[in-house]
Amino acid sequence: MLSLTMCFLFRSEMEVSDIVKSCNKHKIPIVPYGGSTSIEGHTLAPNGGVCIDMSSLKKVKSLHVKDMDVVVEPGIGWMELNDYLEPYGLFFPLDPGPGASIGGMCATRCSGSLAVRYGTMRDNVINLKVVLANGDVVKTGSRARKSAAGYDLTRLMIGSEGTLGVITEITLKLQKIPQYSVVAMCNFPTVKDAADVAIATMMSGIQVSRVELLDEVQVRAVNIANGKNFPELPTLMFEFIGTEAYSREQTHIVQKIAAEHNGTDFVFAEDAAAKRELWKVRKEALWACFAMEPTFEAMITDVCVPLSQLAELIAVSKKELDASRLVCTVIAHAGDGNFHTVILFDPNQEDQRLEAEKLNNFMVQTALKMEGTCTGEHGVGTGKVKYLEQELGIENLRTMKKIKAALDPNNIMNPGKLIPPHVCF
Amino acid sequence: MLSLTMCFLFRSEMEVSDIVKSCNKHKIPIVPYGGSTSIEGHTLAPNGGVCIDMSSLKKVKSLHVKDMDVVVEPGIGWMELNDYLEPYGLFFPLDPGPGASIGGMCATRCSGSLAVRYGTMRDNVINLKVVLANGDVVKTGSRARKSAAGYDLTRLMIGSEGTLGVITEITLKLQKIPQYSVVAMCNFPTVKDAADVAIATMMSGIQVSRVELLDEVQVRAVNIANGKNFPELPTLMFEFIGTEAYSREQTHIVQKIAAEHNGTDFVFAEDAAAKRELWKVRKEALWACFAMEPTFEAMITDVCVPLSQLAELIAVSKKELDASRLVCTVIAHAGDGNFHTVILFDPNQEDQRLEAEKLNNFMVQTALKMEGTCTGEHGVGTGKVKYLEQELGIENLRTMKKIKAALDPNNIMNPGKLIPPHVCF
Repeated sequence: MLSLTMCFLFRSEMEVSDIVKSCNKHKIPIVPYGGSTSIEGHTLAPNGGVCIDMSSLKKVKSLHVKDMDVVVEPGIGWMELNDYLEPYGLFFPLDPGPGASIGGMCATRCSGSLAVRYGTMRDNVINLKVVLANGDVVKTGSRARKSAAGYDLTRLMIGSEGTLGVITEITLKLQKIPQYSVVAMCNFPTVKDAADVAIATMMSGIQVSRVELLDEVQVRAVNIANGKNFPELPTLMFEFIGTEAYSREQTHIVQKIAAEHNGTDFVFAEDAAAKRELWKVRKEALWACFAMEPTFEAMITDVCVPLSQLAELIAVSKKELDASRLVCTVIAHAGDGNFHTVILFDPNQEDQRLEAEKLNNFMVQTALKMEGTCTGEHGVGTGKVKYLEQELGIENLRTMKKIKAALDPNNIMNPGKLIPPHVCF
Repeated sequence: MLSLTMCFLFRSEMEVSDIVKSCNKHKIPIVPYGGSTSIEGHTLAPNGGVCIDMSSLKKVKSLHVKDMDVVVEPGIGWMELNDYLEPYGLFFPLDPGPGASIGGMCATRCSGSLAVRYGTMRDNVINLKVVLANGDVVKTGSRARKSAAGYDLTRLMIGSEGTLGVITEITLKLQKIPQYSVVAMCNFPTVKDAADVAIATMMSGIQVSRVELLDEVQVRAVNIANGKNFPELPTLMFEFIGTEAYSREQTHIVQKIAAEHNGTDFVFAEDAAAKRELWKVRKEALWACFAMEPTFEAMITDVCVPLSQLAELIAVSKKELDASRLVCTVIAHAGDGNFHTVILFDPNQEDQRLEAEKLNNFMVQTALKMEGTCTGEHGVGTGKVKYLEQELGIENLRTMKKIKAALDPNNIMNPGKLIPPHVCF
């Protein structure tokens, strides 16, 4: 049933507005399309329709160095953008999968490993331009960094997954490239110890820029893939930024916290090449998994819980994962309580896919019981739509549906995504 | 025409839901009411109706120290909340007028002097419970710190000024009380120099927790009110936080930046009493103004521009203010580009009120020309409603109106506020 009627590459906002208006008139679904890295089915076309491919709209429209903001088209990738910004000493601090485009990152409210320090897409967008179902081009706000003027249409669009409008322009907050940074790594006997150190670090008031947790299976995957010899134990990786003195001071404070929680082999790097080498462990985690089972596919869970629950969530999940015959690795943005499992399965074996889905479901249910969310950063799409009522309640979904119907009465904008089909009002 | 029919003090969410449902049935306007500190007419009742007084709903429902969050009722004040949190080493980092309640702070998307470090109300709320016009009680999200699950109803409600729902519960992010802090003060020959230092400080990547600008008239007011002898010059005040070493390091870096921009008399305090004494200058700024004209009223502007424009905005505004026969002082949350003028006028002299309004309008128009906003933190209410179309465009206002109509078809929720009456769709 995945019949996609047409796919158009767009070159201007006006073209987008024209085709959306036309689709609205003829009640033809549209599916916005960017870097194609989303993993919850956002770009599927269950009812056919027109795919609005924004990948050639990738200009930097204006850079305001003194305002620390930049206006871009949606098709630009975050890595391309950072290459552009580097000579100005600035960067955009969100780092999802390498191919992700800024428009898609807005649409899915993405984040990544730096969210613990800089927030998610929600916190890093100043305003948007959006084409609505009726063809209206809406500017969601001024270029001031803060404003109390009107409904927060910027945030309403961020995370709406193309179901309310097509994003055609984004003004992003930028950050100064840190003067200095230190990368550190530490091993622990249990994932609970590692998670406890992440919590204690956050509670200490230290503003780490990254705190990532990998379980022993993930470290093994890295060793296999890269011919390394890291201790195959639960591991935390940190990045500390600031002045040289402050980066080092933070490192020593956290080293002490780690030691109090059974941490061993605390190492840190200040030299650029050594830092790059250490971070490769985390950056290439997903690809390292495939090195263990090169013909397999990966199902990646994404749940997020209040910080105090992270250790318990991982402990409970690990029991299920370790009991499964599938290879499962754990990666967490531990400072946010955001937890991923990479579950490898043979796509030709239906029972393995079912087993992966069962594990995924188990982790979502566990997170929901802990007042958490079914998705911390990947979005709802079609994959998580079944959990929304349990997480948010029917009154919330009814409200979403009313907003959707008000802005898109013909339900042409990415239909079938985000809002469960059974919701009425 | 300010006929307020009835005012009820509420004791539970259920009571709020019942009365809202009843008002909706009989099409009677409701006006939510909290700390009563808003200054743009949010709590006026131009069409009469029922005032929903939330000030007795002020419980802390649950504190989660390890998650660094707290669940409160809307009537609690931010200062009361901070008294409650202090023994736990935590605080809530928004500091508007002393009497403001958390519910009202959400409704107006407020911020304050710490927003440069911690963000505004938009960034510090995890979820809300809200009673909608039909009586539905909606929970806007889970208790996870980040989530990509569904439309951001939390942010839609924050800043909606009671026009979409009545906020009955708030889960707030908390911060660790800084281990150490330094307060610093520096004078400049011109406000432009002072504003330039604020910009250069932000561009340096230093994470100040406060950077406040006062003009020479404001300093004079403080001297008169408090019998002080501060140099009557444009002044910047800073707060630096972190470890002891890092707070001092930041102080010295900024001292150097200030010296490069004609800064003089850089002083800083580390002792608690000395810090309190210095901050009094800023904290009591508004009351100090009244010391100059005790029988007068104050009109307070609130505009916000991209950071690079702040110096020019203040310079242009100062020309008008200094040429006026009214006493006008300048206070800016300079790190955010957020600029206030306190314009003192005799409420018995209509021409003075008109002159104050003319100055206010001049500053809003100047900010809008600079891609800024007509309100950085005070909200729209009735006072700024006339500027919204110019700032946001009619397509934006139409979209707001559609959302409003979808959630409140009888227009009972704080009617006459935020959305200009002429907007149709």
